[in-house]
Order: sequence, then structure tokens, then C-alpha cells
Amino acid sequence: MTTPAPIPWEDPPAARTRPIWRYSQNPVIRRDLLPTSNSIFNSAVVPFDGGFAGVFRCDDWTRRMQLHRGRSADGFDWQLDPEPIRFACDDPELATFVYGYDPRVVLIEDRFYVTWCNGYHGPTIGVAWTDDFETFHQLENAFLPFNRNGVLFPRKIEGRFAMLSRPSDNGHTPFGDVFYSESPDLCYWGRHRHVLGPVPNSWQATKVGGGPVPLETSEGWLLLYHGVLTSCNGFVYSVGVALLDRDEPWKVIARAAPHVLAPETVYECVGDVANVVFPSAMLHDADTGRLAIYYGAADTVTGLAFAYVDELVRFAQEHPL
Amino acid sequence: MTTPAPIPWEDPPAARTRPIWRYSQNPVIRRDLLPTSNSIFNSAVVPFDGGFAGVFRCDDWTRRMQLHRGRSADGFDWQLDPEPIRFACDDPELATFVYGYDPRVVLIEDRFYVTWCNGYHGPTIGVAWTDDFETFHQLENAFLPFNRNGVLFPRKIEGRFAMLSRPSDNGHTPFGDVFYSESPDLCYWGRHRHVLGPVPNSWQATKVGGGPVPLETSEGWLLLYHGVLTSCNGFVYSVGVALLDRDEPWKVIARAAPHVLAPETVYECVGDVANVVFPSAMLHDADTGRLAIYYGAADTVTGLAFAYVDELVRFAQEHPL
Amino acid sequence: MTTPAPIPWEDPPAARTRPIWRYSQNPVIRRDLLPTSNSIFNSAVVPFDGGFAGVFRCDDWTRRMQLHRGRSADGFDWQLDPEPIRFACDDPELATFVYGYDPRVVLIEDRFYVTWCNGYHGPTIGVAWTDDFETFHQLENAFLPFNRNGVLFPRKIEGRFAMLSRPSDNGHTPFGDVFYSESPDLCYWGRHRHVLGPVPNSWQATKVGGGPVPLETSEGWLLLYHGVLTSCNGFVYSVGVALLDRDEPWKVIARAAPHVLAPETVYECVGDVANVVFPSAMLHDADTGRLAIYYGAADTVTGLAFAYVDELVRFAQEHPL
Amino acid sequence: MTTPAPIPWEDPPAARTRPIWRYSQNPVIRRDLLPTSNSIFNSAVVPFDGGFAGVFRCDDWTRRMQLHRGRSADGFDWQLDPEPIRFACDDPELATFVYGYDPRVVLIEDRFYVTWCNGYHGPTIGVAWTDDFETFHQLENAFLPFNRNGVLFPRKIEGRFAMLSRPSDNGHTPFGDVFYSESPDLCYWGRHRHVLGPVPNSWQATKVGGGPVPLETSEGWLLLYHGVLTSCNGFVYSVGVALLDRDEPWKVIARAAPHVLAPETVYECVGDVANVVFPSAMLHDADTGRLAIYYGAADTVTGLAFAYVDELVRFAQEHPL
Amino acid sequence: MTTPAPIPWEDPPAARTRPIWRYSQNPVIRRDLLPTSNSIFNSAVVPFDGGFAGVFRCDDWTRRMQLHRGRSADGFDWQLDPEPIRFACDDPELATFVYGYDPRVVLIEDRFYVTWCNGYHGPTIGVAWTDDFETFHQLENAFLPFNRNGVLFPRKIEGRFAMLSRPSDNGHTPFGDVFYSESPDLCYWGRHRHVLGPVPNSWQATKVGGGPVPLETSEGWLLLYHGVLTSCNGFVYSVGVALLDRDEPWKVIARAAPHVLAPETVYECVGDVANVVFPSAMLHDADTGRLAIYYGAADTVTGLAFAYVDELVRFAQEHPL
Amino acid sequence: MTTPAPIPWEDPPAARTRPIWRYSQNPVIRRDLLPTSNSIFNSAVVPFDGGFAGVFRCDDWTRRMQLHRGRSADGFDWQLDPEPIRFACDDPELATFVYGYDPRVVLIEDRFYVTWCNGYHGPTIGVAWTDDFETFHQLENAFLPFNRNGVLFPRKIEGRFAMLSRPSDNGHTPFGDVFYSESPDLCYWGRHRHVLGPVPNSWQATKVGGGPVPLETSEGWLLLYHGVLTSCNGFVYSVGVALLDRDEPWKVIARAAPHVLAPETVYECVGDVANVVFPSAMLHDADTGRLAIYYGAADTVTGLAFAYVDELVRFAQEHPL
Repeated sequence: MTTPAPIPWEDPPAARTRPIWRYSQNPVIRRDLLPTSNSIFNSAVVPFDGGFAGVFRCDDWTRRMQLHRGRSADGFDWQLDPEPIRFACDDPELATFVYGYDPRVVLIEDRFYVTWCNGYHGPTIGVAWTDDFETFHQLENAFLPFNRNGVLFPRKIEGRFAMLSRPSDNGHTPFGDVFYSESPDLCYWGRHRHVLGPVPNSWQATKVGGGPVPLETSEGWLLLYHGVLTSCNGFVYSVGVALLDRDEPWKVIARAAPHVLAPETVYECVGDVANVVFPSAMLHDADTGRLAIYYGAADTVTGLAFAYVDELVRFAQEHPL
Repeated sequence: MTTPAPIPWEDPPAARTRPIWRYSQNPVIRRDLLPTSNSIFNSAVVPFDGGFAGVFRCDDWTRRMQLHRGRSADGFDWQLDPEPIRFACDDPELATFVYGYDPRVVLIEDRFYVTWCNGYHGPTIGVAWTDDFETFHQLENAFLPFNRNGVLFPRKIEGRFAMLSRPSDNGHTPFGDVFYSESPDLCYWGRHRHVLGPVPNSWQATKVGGGPVPLETSEGWLLLYHGVLTSCNGFVYSVGVALLDRDEPWKVIARAAPHVLAPETVYECVGDVANVVFPSAMLHDADTGRLAIYYGAADTVTGLAFAYVDELVRFAQEHPL
Repeated sequence: MTTPAPIPWEDPPAARTRPIWRYSQNPVIRRDLLPTSNSIFNSAVVPFDGGFAGVFRCDDWTRRMQLHRGRSADGFDWQLDPEPIRFACDDPELATFVYGYDPRVVLIEDRFYVTWCNGYHGPTIGVAWTDDFETFHQLENAFLPFNRNGVLFPRKIEGRFAMLSRPSDNGHTPFGDVFYSESPDLCYWGRHRHVLGPVPNSWQATKVGGGPVPLETSEGWLLLYHGVLTSCNGFVYSVGVALLDRDEPWKVIARAAPHVLAPETVYECVGDVANVVFPSAMLHDADTGRLAIYYGAADTVTGLAFAYVDELVRFAQEHPL
Repeated sequence: MTTPAPIPWEDPPAARTRPIWRYSQNPVIRRDLLPTSNSIFNSAVVPFDGGFAGVFRCDDWTRRMQLHRGRSADGFDWQLDPEPIRFACDDPELATFVYGYDPRVVLIEDRFYVTWCNGYHGPTIGVAWTDDFETFHQLENAFLPFNRNGVLFPRKIEGRFAMLSRPSDNGHTPFGDVFYSESPDLCYWGRHRHVLGPVPNSWQATKVGGGPVPLETSEGWLLLYHGVLTSCNGFVYSVGVALLDRDEPWKVIARAAPHVLAPETVYECVGDVANVVFPSAMLHDADTGRLAIYYGAADTVTGLAFAYVDELVRFAQEHPL
Repeated sequence: MTTPAPIPWEDPPAARTRPIWRYSQNPVIRRDLLPTSNSIFNSAVVPFDGGFAGVFRCDDWTRRMQLHRGRSADGFDWQLDPEPIRFACDDPELATFVYGYDPRVVLIEDRFYVTWCNGYHGPTIGVAWTDDFETFHQLENAFLPFNRNGVLFPRKIEGRFAMLSRPSDNGHTPFGDVFYSESPDLCYWGRHRHVLGPVPNSWQATKVGGGPVPLETSEGWLLLYHGVLTSCNGFVYSVGVALLDRDEPWKVIARAAPHVLAPETVYECVGDVANVVFPSAMLHDADTGRLAIYYGAADTVTGLAFAYVDELVRFAQEHPL
Repeated sequence: MTTPAPIPWEDPPAARTRPIWRYSQNPVIRRDLLPTSNSIFNSAVVPFDGGFAGVFRCDDWTRRMQLHRGRSADGFDWQLDPEPIRFACDDPELATFVYGYDPRVVLIEDRFYVTWCNGYHGPTIGVAWTDDFETFHQLENAFLPFNRNGVLFPRKIEGRFAMLSRPSDNGHTPFGDVFYSESPDLCYWGRHRHVLGPVPNSWQATKVGGGPVPLETSEGWLLLYHGVLTSCNGFVYSVGVALLDRDEPWKVIARAAPHVLAPETVYECVGDVANVVFPSAMLHDADTGRLAIYYGAADTVTGLAFAYVDELVRFAQEHPL
């Protein structure tokens, strides 16, 4: 087995009031990294083969939403395959790719699983696995439409796969709660439980949805998620932090009232969709407690930010709703 | 075993252009049959114990949507329990009844299963079983919200339970397609397939949803369903007919372009929601091919109508989209 | 002083489940009672001069909303002045009549006060007084726009005039709570307090607004009010009952969960606005505890209904939310 | 030439306050006159061949909107061709019939012209002519989408064909003014002029659109038209009357503030679209000044009403806005 | 008494076409001046105690809208109290702080009065006074909800307090006019008069609302106000100027058609709400006629701009609507 | 005749993936080029008199939309007349200028024709001609409202003038297809044909509209056009390319799936309307095949970009939908 690469990192600025700080060279992935990409954002990365691999949302010039594989030695500099992923699938009903966006990637036992917003008579949660980031084997869609932001837990809970998702409608959904579902086999899903919903008069008043794959800590599952506020000029997407029970992850142990990252920089406030920070992946260094967080910025580019696990855990515990 | 009661029936009128005709004494169940009912409609009935039993949507004076059990000797004259059903359920998360409406009842093997629109952080499909119409054992909700019109097939398909449903949003959903899902155990559901959607420039242009439990015929599953047209003054609900493949019921074999029942009478056009006919149950007499169809009228009362199975099958076959 | 006329009355039907019953000859005022009236509804009546007098909402054929005076010997048979009321007013800014609708009339000390929805750069609450139902002296509008359903209490509270109203927007307002305000002089208003709001998942889920002038009882102020539910085909207006504290009337002592009158008859369900019962006045016989309730039906005609005060009080007390 | 048939007629009721009165046997055409018709309304009739002929909007059970030819000896009793009109047209781009509704028919010189709302990438004004009510020759669409209610004048104005129409959008248009356009050849149209628009705070506050073919009188063109008010429960369609300048018909000489017909009867208030009276044709008896007016009722059936030309002219003159 | 500090000032740029110019170091208050502030904008300042004091809208990381006190020696450099203001109030019904935003501060006679948008069952106008900017004594809300932008005049008019406000709805109100109200005692308000409304086809087509406290000049009250245009991508807030009658301030003497400040810089066009300049306070130097104008920019930061009183007065006079 | 000036030009950057590249000194026309202009964009230029002339959309500080004439020697540096164009027109009905925006200019035979969005009871297509860019002679509006983006072809087709336009509604139209119309005389228009519509799941999913005057090439008419995608935060306007049949220009020969220019720079993403690139004119150098494209940016300034005709033609051919 190869030695894992160190995760991307920059030390925090000297004077700091917030638990997350941005990469000084953001955007870490620019919109036109691929010769035909209109934008690259809301993407997912994992340690792989002595470096990093990932599945990337690339909207091409036609604004077709597609998923591309990519590799990086250091997590900063990424090479993306200009060809979108073509999922291997025997069932012709599923095999027709309509659109795919906002992927997450997680290693469970010995396979990497990708979940994404998959077009099948509306958006739902597509599921596939790979062990080489070359061939991706598509499974059944987890749920009926309309759903987005399907996020698998990195281990089985009580012997069953576990997923967060956010039921939606068929448009720019003006509502949204996070639910928890279980599956014995990644084919049939059930035991749906409500996890968390919007909070009135706050940055997360309109809707919330899962972010990166939750990280297990002694205090519970560390969940970064996005929340949306509706201003008179549209949605504003920020990032929140919560802790879920380790054994019954639909139970919220702690949830911070304040956001931990909100659109402030030009590349977060200006782009195809103004005022969006959307966390979709994080890399964890267990020895140091460091986190490298990848997030979509303005639905146009990919940002990178950093944090310490223990600070985020405490922030969730110490700033209750 | 008791001898089954004959299903309700009236012969068709002499001059008839349509495959379904109304009961001359409609509404068969009036809005105030219960002393505290504002309206009784979109209800489900089955043969039971030498007569008929059913689960009824009764909105009380508070307009709380609840389910009531009921019995009838002849299918015309109904006695409803003034107390709503309290489902037996061990899990406190599920046991809290928020609202329930639009039930369907089906006999699968040796149990009667009830599905209904169940409030759990939004409408989804509740599932319960009974063998005596006294105690109803609540199972897990089949799907994540938002969903309505969950309709179980009366037998397993390929060894798995099968259900139609209509994913929705959290309001007066202005869209809706019918999907098919499977479950090995009535707990976990998957293998979701699209069945049928709206048809532009027609009575079913806005949305469609399942109706009574499908009836198996040699030509396929006979499906009555509702379709909705949006006029400048709101929704108009009518009834359509289709045939689904017996083995792969998500495949539509035949589907009639015309509606087979549409709001025409005063009790269908005037009430809490004008212009609604909503089929929710049917009784079948195998010997004669007769059907007694129960339907909600104007979201206020329950109507009864009659048809012959073979005529409906032919109508679906001979009036293609 | 003249002997007051007996209020209109019909004994309740033999079998009765509800605390309010309808006049058998409804509508008591038909839409074309005036030669140029399109509709007459949401009107207010009081005992006057040995009979009854009132202010009536009459929409003419142009659908101009105007107020007309009217008289009746028995409360059933009404004579309306075909000429709309022209308010006496010295201030030219106020004197321009734009539109007026949904009046209430109340006797406070020695004057009859009329409040109505008055057009002044949007709907607000107009106020006027009369002692002869011939000349009506217009005062300042009570509030800024947008407001509707201003209802004065029949006596001063703590030495100040008291009014219920329902702040609105400039259209078919999809929200609405009842507030309480005070005035030392009917010119300046303040000390605004929230009284009651909508109730989710009920007949009053969208908005609520005051009805007839509250009636003081030993149990508190008896308030009939309207509540609105939004169906997929529009608003449904029903009638509710509550008791307010006698000294601090913004405090709700009791409020019935069920409605006490809802659209059921053809003249309530069919008309210029389907599915409306809107209570706007009541006559009280102190000796017998009888109430005669006038209400708008389908925004087209005027209905009359009857009740006993003590039954309504008990209904509010015994059917809590 | 055949002697023209007398137009349908009933004398007015004894006590009458309005210039238009209904046929006592309404609806004159019921919704199911054809074996496959869901509804028949908004249709147009003319004297023809010693009786009457017309083009009828028939929505079939699929709710496809189609045009059918029909004949009547007396204007009361109609025989409709169950086959929809198939227009003769050489240009394949135009020849594809998508939908057609709300026809008008007019005799200009020696041909009958039909105009209707024609589906061509949205609703626009289709034009065709016939001289036998058997073959209908389709011409170019008069305008770009989106347009409805195209009404030709019965003679050329200044040597050019003249048409009223109501530009729209692609839905249940919430706005609408009547415009006037000219054409030298029924192919190219221009010199568009505004004629009349909605009137705030009235029965015609939302939109207005042309009705029957205008009738030339010594006082100007007599125009019946529909106007729409938006209640909280949807549109209400009523009928208005105006006089247009004979030589420059875009100039309004007189326009009545009140409506002259509004939904009042059950067949006008209840049906596929509640609260609609929509005038689409009138027959004129020059000797007596009688008018027989055909109008759609509740978008479901066809009504018939009667008036005297001179009364309508005076009504427009004597009830100014 | 201390000598007043000179107001902040920068001379205008050499070439200038507009009556208002921006501070070269804008934003004068950045979004994170407080350690927990998400944004600081729409705030109010006055001369106080030899320097300046103010009440500031600070939205914290939770996006709770709160009011903070602040002090400055020179009007450029501000120290804000990180603790929000807790209003002193005896009435528990009022004492519950829900949210507060968009304050104005004015000196009337010997007290400073604060008005702000105060959450009480919807937004309304909160009123409080202070004489030390430490303790703020809360009075009754001036009006019923829904209201925003309450602006007191700096002296009584005809012996009564006078306030401008903008009645609203409960969301991102798409309409809004400015009204004038009077009060003998800051408790009861009345004599409401319309002042100014939107202007079609202009930068103020959607709504208008009061800005800083009006400044009395020989030509009338100088009013800066905000106006809103709705583009296809949301609201655009600009600044306008008008003159009101000194004795009857609801009478508009002059009103400029053009805006005098509109979003142009990055900090005005990019932020939590794009394209907002919102004037909320101004400091006046009577000797020089200089004005320092504080305004919210993009609902994120506070901008500063300068003008001469006489130029603004002339601009209003010379650019009529 | 004067020698034509060379069109503006910059060679493409070395590494280039797209067929259009921006002028390095953009915006070529800044928002405040005129002393009273709020913004200058969506303007049209042509070679004229040895240099260039144009008609410019200038919104003044009042946000009145007006048209101004302008001249330039080199196409980079423009002098605009501060006085708006006052069209010469004999008909008083047309002569009233309400608003004008988004002009196009084209030379047909010996006259320059201007088309623009002209306010006449809603937006429609105004038409005028000039031969000196001093006097502009207004003709009849081409169409009924509601219409925008009228673009004349530079020569007659089959002997008739030809125009593209985009029927609309009266607001921020959320739909829109391009149609083709013909006229023998620029007064009467007809033979309307559908050309192209939106493409689902793409940058042009909401609506499309014509851009600069089409350029005739051997491969067909080269059409640049704008397409709009609706994000959760509003419209995004990009540029597409298509080829139309030379003889029957309503027939699309080729149409590129990807956009060829989309908002990326700050001056395109930030301004009065974020995220707009709107092509409105192009200059062609026949010898070199060079194109200089003028486009509105963020509805605020005017951008300039460059391309080669043959590359655009190939792009349309090689990237089919």
C-alpha cells in the first residue's frame, strides 16, 4: 500500500475570528481548467493511490451538467479527464445519462462510492462504485425523484448503508430538510428519518442540505452542510456545522446557530450564481486534526478552505441554535 | 369462509356514450355522515367478512384530515366509526399521527394493507396492515417525503411487493408523474421506474396519479388514475384508464387519450374543491366483469360509479394517445 | 324611546349537530335587491328606531364597491337606498370616495359608528358616525394602509376606543392576523397588540379576520370571525368562534378548533367568489340569548343564521385548539 | 336567393332592469351534443342558406380543442358534424392542426371568413374562408403568437380588411387590451392601433377581449366584448358594450362602465371554468333591431340571450366610464 | 456644552456631473468591524457629546438582525459595542426582542429618538429614546405591522410628532409608498397622509421609502429617500431627492426625476444583496452647507458620501418628474 | 464615396479555446460616456461616411430608456449626441415617444433602417429609416405588442423585407422563441414562421432572441443570438451561433449546442443586471473575414469582441445540438 499523501494545508492567518479560513490562492480549480468547461464546482475528492482522486462537476459550454474523473498529487493541482464519466450499467432504463451534478465520493470498506444528483424523470440520487476511478459501475437510483445532495456515511450503521439526502421539487426548490435513510444492499432504501430543517430568521431560513461525507469523531458525526437564505435578490448559500449521534445519526447532538463560511470574496459572490459557498468534500488528516474543505464558489469555480476538526466540533457545541 | 356479498351495481342507462356511469343516488356517502365530519371522500373499500369494509378519509370540522374505519353490508349504506384510526406502532418517531388522507386498501395474500398520504415532515406514503379492520399495524413509511397516492399492487411481482406512487412537493403540487417501486419486505424500497406522466394539451396536462388498486386482467393491469388540467380558475381532476404490463408493470401497454369520467354533476363541480372526480377504490365481480368504482367528488362527498372491466380494457386499447 | 323590535329568528331544526343553523329562506338579501346591484353581501345591521338599520356593501354592475344605507322593520325584509352613502367630511384629502366595502356598525354610547374597508392609496379602515342613518360624518382613517376588517368594540376599554383589525397587503392577501388597537379619541391609534393568527393544518390555515362586533358576555367577549383555507382551487372562508378577555381583549381566553359555519349550500358555494361564508353582523336578544347572524355568501348575497349565545360560548370553551 | 330565416327570439320578461335577457331554455347547446364532446362553447353562427350555419368550439373527451361545423334551421336546434373541420391548406408548415378554439365567423362581401385561436408555437389568430361551410380554406395566420380573440369587421375599412385582436402570453394571460389592425390582402397586417384596455376597480380590471363581429349602426360599430375581473378564487368573465368610430374603429366613441351580462345562473357559474359568460356571435334582425347573442357559459355549454340594438347603443352612451 | 465635532468631509472631485460624491476610502464601515458581524449597514448616526454616536444594524453570523450602539470621534472611524442594545421596557409583550433593523436616530428637543424596523408579529416601527446612548427606553410600536422605514421629523409639526413610514407586507415587498403620520404623544398615531409613491418607467418604479431624517431648509424639508427598480435579476436600490412642505410635509414641493446615487462601485453591486445603495443618515454642517451621508451598500457594508445642501435642493427643483 | 474605415480589431490571444475573444480594453463604451447616462449598452453600429455611426441605448439617470445617435472614426472611440433621437413622424398616435431600447441598424439598399423595442401600449418593434443619422423617419410599428428584438435582414428575401423578432409578454418574459416575418412595404407584415426556440437543459433553456443583423455567407445566414438560462438567482444571458437557410431563413441549417460567449468578466457579471452578454451589432470585413461584435454587458456598459466568420460558421456546423 502506498503512503497517503499529506492533505493540502495552509496555516491559519494570525488574527482569526472564524473556524474556517480560505486558501490564499483560491480558486483552487478555475472554471476553464478543461478546454470545454464553462465551470467546475461542487466536486468531490478522496485520498487515492498515494495522491488524490475525485469526481468533478463540470458544466460544459452547453451548460450540460456532467461528471468527470480527476487526479492530483497534492490536492492543489488537479488534472481532469476531458471526457465525462460514462457509467457502466446493464439496465438500459438507467443507462441513459441525462445529467449528473454535485457528486460526493466516499470509501466504504473496499470500494469508492459515488453519489450524485442524477437526472431520471427529475433529479434523484444516483449511486455508483469504482475501485480504480476508471470504471464506474452504476447501481439503482437510491430514491424516487425529486431529491438532491445524497451523501453516504463512510461506514455502515447497524449493518446497513446510511445516506443523507434532501427531498426537493423539480425546480429551484424553495424548501428543503435533510433526511436519513438506510439500506441493507444499496438497492432498497427505507427507515427514513428526519434529521434537520431550516431555521427561521437566520442564514439557513430557506433550506438546508448535506455537504461533505460526515467525519466520525468521538463527539459524533461532524457534518458540514449548506444552508440557504432568500434575499430580495435571490438565494445566498452558506456553510453550517452540526454533530450527529454516532449510532442514530438522525439525532442532532449539536448544531451551530452561526454559519462557519459565507460568501465574501469576489469569486464566491460573482459568477454564474452569485453568493454561493457549497461544501462538497473534505480531506482529513487524523494525526493533526486538519481538514481541507473543497467547496463550490458561485456555481463557477472550486474553492479550498481549511479548519481543525476539534475547533469545528467545539463551534457546533458552543454556539447552539 | 363467508360467501362474498354481491358488489353494488346499477345497470347502465339505455343511451350511453361512455364506459363509466354514475350511481343514480349519488353521493353514496354524504359529507356529514359522521356527526363531526366536514367531508368524506377519497376513501377505500374492499370485500370483507361477507360484506365490505373500508378506510375513509374524513376531514372533521377543524379540517383535520383523518382516517376512519367503516363497514357496509351492501356497499351502498355505510357505517363509519366516529373515532379515527389510531395506528399501532412501536417506534415513537412514527407513532405521532400528524395527518392522513387518501387511503387505499388492498388484500395481499392474507392481510389487508392500507397505504395513505401520511404527514411526516411533509406528505409521504404511510403503510399499515390489518386483518380485522379493528387494529391497524403501522409499518415504516415507504418513501421520503414528498409523495402522495401510494397504491400497492394486489400481489407480489417477481417476489416483491410493488407500489405506484406520485412524487410531489410540499404544496398544491403543479406537476406529477406516476412511478413504480419494489420492496422485498415492505420496509426498504427501490428499483424505482417511471410509469406515466402528464400529456400536453389534454385533460391530464398538469399531473397524474394512481387511483384504485390495479386489477389484473388477461390484457394487463387495469389502472384507473386521476389526471389534472389547470384552467384559469384552478385544477380540474378527471379519471383516465391505462393497461400496464403484467410482469413489468412500469411498462404502459395501452393508455386512453380521453378521460372516462370528468366532473359534470353538481356534487362533483361544487364543494370544498370544485371540479374533482378522484377514483380511489373499486370492487370487482369476477363472474360478471362488473366494477363498482368509489371516487371522491369535489373533495366533499363520495361518489359511486359502475363499469364493465372488458369495456374499460377495450377503451384503453382503442383510444390511444 | 321606541320598543326594540324582536330580532329575526327561526328555531333550530330537530336534529342538529352544530351550534349555528341557517335561515330556511336564505339568502335573506338577494343580489339584485337594488335595481343596479350586482351583489349585496358582507353588510352590517343594528337595532334602530323600533326596527333595524344597516350599512350594506353593494357592488354595482360596474363592480364598484359602495356602501348603502338600509332599513327593515323585522330584520328579514330590507329596503335599501339605491343611492350610495356620501360621507360628510371637511378634509378634501379624505373626502374623495374611492371604494368602500365590508362595513361594520356599532352603537357606542350615543352614536352609531361605521367602520369599513376604505380606499386611500390602498385599503385601510374608514371610520364615520351617524345618529340617524341619514348623515354619516367621516373621521380620520384609523390606520395606515393596508388594512381590512376593522371592528370596533361596543364600549370603551379602560376609557379608550378599541378596535380589531387585520393588516393586509394590496392584493388578495395570503396571510392575516387579528390585532387590537386603542384610541383616546378615534383619531390617533396605538398600543397595538396581537390577538390571534392562523392555525396550521386547519380551516383557518391561511388567514383570519374579525367578524361582527364582539358581544360582551360574562365569559368574555364573544367573537365570531372568519378564517381561510387555501385549497388548490382558491380560498375557502369559514366562521370560527373565540372568547376574548373582557378587560384585555387582546388575550384569547378560548378558541374553538372547529369552524362553526362553512360553505355548504349552493348560495354559499356558487357565486362571484365560490366558497365564502363571511360573518359581518349579529343581533342579540338579551332576554333569550338568541343571536341572528348576518353573513356574506359567495361574495354575492347575504345569508342569515341563528344561534344561542351560551351554546357558542360553550363551543369555544369545549373545543380548544 | 333563399329567404333568410327569422333569428331566434324571446320577448323580454315583464320586469327588466338590464338590456340583455337570457333564453329561457338555456343552455341552447348542451355540453354533450356530440357523442364525443366534453363541452361546446365560445362558438360562432351566421345566417346561411335559409337557416343558420356556424363554427363551433368542441373540446372532446381528451380536452383537445377543435372546431366543428354545424347547421340549424331556427338557431335554437343545432346539428353539429361529429368530425372536426380539417382545413385545406397547401403550406405544410401551416397545415398541421395543433389546436383551434374560440372561432368567429363573418360574411365579408361574398365569402365567410373564420378566425380562431390557432396553435402555431403558441396561440395566434388563424384565418380561413368558406362559401359552403363544407370546405374551409386556411390562409396565413394573421399575427405572430401570442394572440387570441381575433375578430374581423364585416366590411373593409378604407379598402382594407380590419381585425380586432388581443395580444396575450402563452398561459392564462393576466392582462389584455384590444388592438385594431389592417390588411390589404388578409396576408400582411399592420397599422396596429390600441382600442381599449382594462378599467381599474371594475368588472373589467384584468383584461378585455373582442366578442361577436361588430355590428355597424348609425351611432358607430356596436361592440360586445368580454372583460375579466380577478377574484381571490380566479377569473370572472362578464360582457361589456362599446361603440367604435365607423371610419376609424380604433377610436372609442362610447363605452359603458357597467357590464351588460355577468355570470349568475348555475350553468354560467358552474362548469369546467366557473363564472364565465363569453359572447362570441350575434344574429341581427335589421327590421326589428333584435339581436340574438350566443355566448359560452362556464367554458362548458353555449348560452343564448337577446337584446335590442338601440337599447345596447343607448346603454353604451348613457353609462360612461 | 461641548463644541460639536466637524462632520466628515472630502471635497468633490474636479470633474463632477452629480450632486453626490463618494468617500474615497469607502466602505467607511466594513462588514466585519465587530468580531461576530456578518455585515454592518443601514445605520444611523448623529452628533453627540463632542463627537458622534449612532445606532447600527449589525447582522451577526447567524444573520440575526440586531442593533448596536457605536461612537466615533470623527465620523470616519467607529467603535461599536459588540453587545447588541437591550431595550428597557416594562411591558413584557413589547420587551421580547425578535429582530431589529434599519434604524434612524433623531434629536427632538432634548432626547434622541431611535426608530427601527421592529419584529412584532411581522415588521413594524419600533420607537425608543435615549439621552446617553447607553440606555434606550422602548415605547409603543408606532403602527400595526407591516411597516418599515419609519423616519421621525426633527421637530414637532403643529405641536405633534411627525413620522414618515412605508407600509409593507410580510416578505420582500414588491410595492411601497411613503406616508406621513402624526402623534401627540409618540403613543397614538393618526392623521395618515400619502406623501409619495413609485414612478413608472424609472429607477423608482417598484417602491420608495424614507431615508435619513429630513433636513429643514428654507425651501422645504430636504428628503433623501430610496427607490427600487425590479430588473429581471432582482431589485436595484438607488437614492432620490425631494422637497416637502415645511408646514404640511405630506405635500411634495419638488421631486427629482433622476436618482442622485445609484449602485456603481463593487462594494455597492456585490455583497449579500447586490445593487443596493440605501441612505439612512446624514450629518449637516450648517455653516458650510455640507452634508455627510451614510448609506448601506449591498446590504453588507456602510458607505459614506458627501453633498452640499443647496445643490441637492436645486437638483430637486430643477429636474422635475 | 468614401473609403470604408477598417473595422476595430485585435488579434486573438495565443492560447484560445473559443471562437470569440474580448477586446482587451473593454468596456469599449463606459456607462457614463454621456454626462447624464446611467448606462449605455445593447447598441447598434454600422459603417458610415468613412467611419462608423450608430444608434445607442442610453438609460439616463431617471432610467428612462432612450436612443441616441453616435459617431466614431475607428469604432473604438465614440462620440454620442447627448440629446436623444426625436423621430420624425406625422401620425400623432405613433409620434409620442414612450420608451425605446435595444436598437439594431441595418443598411438595406440605400437606407439605414433602425428597429428597436418601442413602447406603444407595451413593447413592440419600432421601425425608422435615416440616410444621414441626423433625421430618423419613423414608420409603422411592425407588430402588435408584445415583442422585442426585431432584427431586419440586410436584403430583401424573395422581394420582401424580412425580420426576425421574439414575441414576449409585458414583463421580464420567462419564455421566447425567434420568429421570421415578411413585408412587402415595411408597413404590413405576415407569413410568420417559427425559427428557433429554447433548448432544455442548456444555457438557452429559458428563451432566445435575435442579436446582430444576420451576415450572409455561402453557408447560410450567420446568426448570433442571445439565449437565457434561469438560475436560482435570475437570468444568465449568453451568446449562441446558428446558420439559417439563405432563401428560406426560417429554416435552421446549423445551430451550435455550446454558447460562444458567456458572462465571465467583472463588467459582464456585475452591473445593473448581473450576468448578461447581449450581442446587438457586428461589423464585418469581407476581405479578412474578421468580425467586430458589439454587445451589452450587465445591462450597464458596451463590450467589444472579435471573431472570424469562417470559425463561427464552422463552430455552428461542428457542434450540433
